[in-house]
Amino acid sequence: MTGPEGADADGATAAAGPGRERQRRLARAALARVAEPGDELVGRWVDELGPEETWRALREDRRPAGATPERWAGLRLRAERAAPERDLSVIAALGGRFVCPGDREWPSQLDDLGWARPVGLWVRGRCSLRFVALRSVALVGARACSEYGAHVAAELGMALAERGWTVVSGAAYGIDGAAHRGALAVGGATIAVLACGVDVSYPAAHRELLGRIAESGLVVAELAPGDHPTRARFVQRNRVIAALTRGTVVVEAARRSGALITARHAGRLGRHLMAVPGPVTSGLSAGAHRLIREDATLVGGAGDIIELVGEMGELAREESGPVVSRDLLAPQAARVLDAVPAVGAADAEELARGACTSREAAIARLHELSSLGFVERVGDRWQLCR
Amino acid sequence: MTGPEGADADGATAAAGPGRERQRRLARAALARVAEPGDELVGRWVDELGPEETWRALREDRRPAGATPERWAGLRLRAERAAPERDLSVIAALGGRFVCPGDREWPSQLDDLGWARPVGLWVRGRCSLRFVALRSVALVGARACSEYGAHVAAELGMALAERGWTVVSGAAYGIDGAAHRGALAVGGATIAVLACGVDVSYPAAHRELLGRIAESGLVVAELAPGDHPTRARFVQRNRVIAALTRGTVVVEAARRSGALITARHAGRLGRHLMAVPGPVTSGLSAGAHRLIREDATLVGGAGDIIELVGEMGELAREESGPVVSRDLLAPQAARVLDAVPAVGAADAEELARGACTSREAAIARLHELSSLGFVERVGDRWQLCR
Repeated sequence: MTGPEGADADGATAAAGPGRERQRRLARAALARVAEPGDELVGRWVDELGPEETWRALREDRRPAGATPERWAGLRLRAERAAPERDLSVIAALGGRFVCPGDREWPSQLDDLGWARPVGLWVRGRCSLRFVALRSVALVGARACSEYGAHVAAELGMALAERGWTVVSGAAYGIDGAAHRGALAVGGATIAVLACGVDVSYPAAHRELLGRIAESGLVVAELAPGDHPTRARFVQRNRVIAALTRGTVVVEAARRSGALITARHAGRLGRHLMAVPGPVTSGLSAGAHRLIREDATLVGGAGDIIELVGEMGELAREESGPVVSRDLLAPQAARVLDAVPAVGAADAEELARGACTSREAAIARLHELSSLGFVERVGDRWQLCR
Repeated sequence: MTGPEGADADGATAAAGPGRERQRRLARAALARVAEPGDELVGRWVDELGPEETWRALREDRRPAGATPERWAGLRLRAERAAPERDLSVIAALGGRFVCPGDREWPSQLDDLGWARPVGLWVRGRCSLRFVALRSVALVGARACSEYGAHVAAELGMALAERGWTVVSGAAYGIDGAAHRGALAVGGATIAVLACGVDVSYPAAHRELLGRIAESGLVVAELAPGDHPTRARFVQRNRVIAALTRGTVVVEAARRSGALITARHAGRLGRHLMAVPGPVTSGLSAGAHRLIREDATLVGGAGDIIELVGEMGELAREESGPVVSRDLLAPQAARVLDAVPAVGAADAEELARGACTSREAAIARLHELSSLGFVERVGDRWQLCR
């Protein structure tokens, strides 16, 4: 992914200046509205021509190689309606932002998607997507899950969150919702990756859940604000979940479940593929069993998952220190970390006071710091990792 | 295993004559009483010196290499009490027999046990052990199983039996009993391998079940009539179950279950090792899940099992013909097979009349012929395989 943008440095604007950087961001926002998620043709143009030139070509009707006239016409129709300035205002009004490749917050593991890499991600929430996704696991599964599946998903969500792992899912009914709720229940970080705009509540009954996720975790989408889900968008959304995480766990899935698509994406991307078994008498476990028979690892609890996705010697690492250097922390995160006492624990309010920030901002930073292995949560308080 | 007996031909008495053959059989029966199951030292003597010379050495106190004085004294003490003539009368009175390596009925897959091969097997029931065990699968698991486990074991027992596979288990409470009962319920063949004499009902509450198994299948033990089970004998019994079958399926097992011993034996012997998953919330499935994480194949139904243990192209084979040549059938089996109509089906009584034998004997032969792929059962009737 090193085209005319040079090392993907949309955000590293030293040479180009803030004007150039803004043009680039606008072009990516426009393309996010125009191109369907996972459109590898547009991805290739962005890679080879750069986002601005791709966007300019669309507006000026200069068809690049590879596009059929029909395809080009379709993209052009959409481009007529694109209003990237407005979309960026909308996301800002939601308290969110548009994160692009090369930005400090961009999770570079998404680059593994090649030309299918999202042109950008619309993000709601306070944490850094890059940091919170660094140690993350996807929990996915059936919408119409069983009580058993919902129970296991919630337990895994809780246990992973308690051990500093971010739970990534799709905010759907069933397994997804249970996994997010499990992580939220213990005050952990969780990311919902949507197949629609981050301002669209889908399913509608999950409006409150999505609000809670945005509050203490992140709601993420490659679709521009206001866009609605389609079958194809669900499929493409799954590739983002798979790429964002170190591994995907299928909790409960029938033989023809969408969760299996995420699973296959995970496998193709070299991520860990895991599945939770269930009764063989339950059709809702048939998909998981099939995956285990093929190439997924059977996991029965958070310990099994972390054993697989954790660094070599994860347990030792948790005791010996964080995964990134303190120098790489953003200034606000570094200030919150400085506020954590050397001995004992402190609650979010004390830490916010120490770091001179709001309580909410402090909590967001603490989740990042927890994901990175700097701090850990003990009840309502936070302390340095030993 | 080619010692002085020459190609294990205890039963092939052409050269040695019936007197020599009887002496050999008596020696093996005596050693079956004297040696604990799986005693590799005695197994080695039998292999190197032959059963008669080993037995003679014991009686005449000529200690072979490898035996400590204590061990030798213990074997001698038991030898004083051995009464092989009486044991052979007892088994005959039970309508059974003592099957030795080299006999036509000996299942030669047990030779894979090397020096731990049983010196002989005491058998109750009408079928040929060799033929019925040829296409067999072991279903094993927890005694204190869950309803889920019992249900799955019974279903697998039924489905395997319906497809002409013999279900082998240990006649214990729980999974074992459910597996046997499943096979019996559809009139299938099943083998109980005991850790005590074939005339001992263990557990006592399974007296009736053992009677039914002996009636339409086989009850088998390497321990002489009247011997009682011990912990070590259960462990050694499991090696026989593993060796006798093409694969072992662990249906439900806690982390420290005896079923896992059978599983490990199966793995070491190069047999297929399979396990049935269950809820991760159930401790009774933890052993099965661990096996799947290690090297067992997850199986959810009889189809999965047969796919693994069946010959290559099992499904095609079932349509194209039996696994052994018709010429190799014992005369009585061949007569029953001749009685099966070329078109359509017949019930056991008609077939018994046609083969000029008793109804019970005809049913036993039909089970063998079914295991060998010659005939198949349709309700209460039998027909030639297509």
